Amino acid sequence: MALLHLLVSAGQKGLVLCHLNHGLRGRESGQDAAFVRRLGRKYGLPCEIEKTPVSEQARTQKVSIETAARMARYDFLHRMALRHGAECIYLAHHADDQAETILANLCRGTGISGLKGMVAETATAPVLCRPLLEMPRAEIEAYVKAHGLAYREDSSNLSPAHRRNRLRHEVLPLLNEVYAREVTPLIVRLGRQAARDEDCLQQQAREFIQQEGVIAQDGRLLLSTKLRSLHPAVLSRILHFWLGGLAVPGVDADLLDDALAMLRPGGPAKINLQGGRHLRRKAGCLWVTEAV
Amino acid sequence: MALLHLLVSAGQKGLVLCHLNHGLRGRESGQDAAFVRRLGRKYGLPCEIEKTPVSEQARTQKVSIETAARMARYDFLHRMALRHGAECIYLAHHADDQAETILANLCRGTGISGLKGMVAETATAPVLCRPLLEMPRAEIEAYVKAHGLAYREDSSNLSPAHRRNRLRHEVLPLLNEVYAREVTPLIVRLGRQAARDEDCLQQQAREFIQQEGVIAQDGRLLLSTKLRSLHPAVLSRILHFWLGGLAVPGVDADLLDDALAMLRPGGPAKINLQGGRHLRRKAGCLWVTEAV
Repeated sequence: MALLHLLVSAGQKGLVLCHLNHGLRGRESGQDAAFVRRLGRKYGLPCEIEKTPVSEQARTQKVSIETAARMARYDFLHRMALRHGAECIYLAHHADDQAETILANLCRGTGISGLKGMVAETATAPVLCRPLLEMPRAEIEAYVKAHGLAYREDSSNLSPAHRRNRLRHEVLPLLNEVYAREVTPLIVRLGRQAARDEDCLQQQAREFIQQEGVIAQDGRLLLSTKLRSLHPAVLSRILHFWLGGLAVPGVDADLLDDALAMLRPGGPAKINLQGGRHLRRKAGCLWVTEAV
Repeated sequence: MALLHLLVSAGQKGLVLCHLNHGLRGRESGQDAAFVRRLGRKYGLPCEIEKTPVSEQARTQKVSIETAARMARYDFLHRMALRHGAECIYLAHHADDQAETILANLCRGTGISGLKGMVAETATAPVLCRPLLEMPRAEIEAYVKAHGLAYREDSSNLSPAHRRNRLRHEVLPLLNEVYAREVTPLIVRLGRQAARDEDCLQQQAREFIQQEGVIAQDGRLLLSTKLRSLHPAVLSRILHFWLGGLAVPGVDADLLDDALAMLRPGGPAKINLQGGRHLRRKAGCLWVTEAV
């Protein structure tokens, strides 16, 4: 509500309200959709409302409800952006959401790249844009109150069944209490620094790949002396890009550590990948074997 | 106890047991010292035992008890290393200590460089060496039990008055519960990656300073075109080294962000430092003014 009010106040043209009903909260979900329709009439904006059976998708795709819901939501938003020729998808994530994301990534073991959290603006169209990403929830609540904006609370935001909610209602308040200060801005700032460092190291990895032509036409990685002498921080990003380009699943920090070890003198010549594939080193090259 | 047993078992020669009595727990502290003396007799090793009035030092130096205790401890260990001509100071920090340090640094806002936590081995003599840094507490406890080693528990390790203890007994168990797994190894791995990335970016910063000679004899930083065109991740490390060399106090992530902003077109020409000093930009240079 705050983001919509800010965008309308700033004179943003061509807004379309998009709402995905996840079908998880029965009647309450239907009332949310009706609320968005009334909002559209009030602001004179077109609405796109869809319903997706998220529980079913989670079951068939073997992911958590939260993951299925997120995937369905971003898929919906991208399709709507395409339908309306929109260049930008505005999202209302705020600083507290960002701190929760960073803390969640820390506990899920996504490594340094997960520490950057959500990006304020993605690079490719349609751009995902999060203008409120550095604004604390308290400021947004004050804005909503000051402008008398009506809003609906998602009751599942209170359920301790979701990890995200336990971070919000238990872990972060506990950290604030132990450190006698709001830790959210510190975590958000750390995320900004992590994003900057990650960008720098990825840029160096991309430049090296381009300039040195270490990825051969057939997909092998050529282990030149120059490549082997790179700092492991850059080398691990090169391995990440290379394996990503080959659509190798399950590339995480552990696998990258193992792959780095293959480049050291006396390191292993073969490691296992998911799906029966292998990473092999021979004759100054690394390559990924096909699934048998 | 586990570290001592491991070192003795491995045949490490020339060990000296060092114990600093912080004088914080009355009779219990004295009993700890007596325990260490008995231990020295048992293993046939010399002991160094000192007592320091940590509470008083905390008051006069205006730091927390924990900080004063840590400073006193490392000062003591360095003096003892010098006295005995020791090349190495062994410390028994383990993986759970490391995870707590990283989480504490996250909440204290030390930025990315704090995420690396404690280093397994420092670069300069006497080397601080932490051989157990990747070993979980549970494994150490199992080792102690398997070898029937006697030990003493520090009662202040249980007091919720210390932040560190609240991380250990409240925050980390809560995170383990929410994520239904041990988060410590994930945090420790993140620390290792952060250390690697930080090392890479610092190395690039040091090499640039040496090769380009951007720090003038009089202490100014020369803002060459090449320096301005560096990635901010490297540039912030150069500013950090430069300000560190000038013994500027209070150089944190916020100050570095502000200093970076001075190098952008239209950025400020002056920012305030602690102690009445200023950072100024003029005629293609940055410099630090003296305190008035």
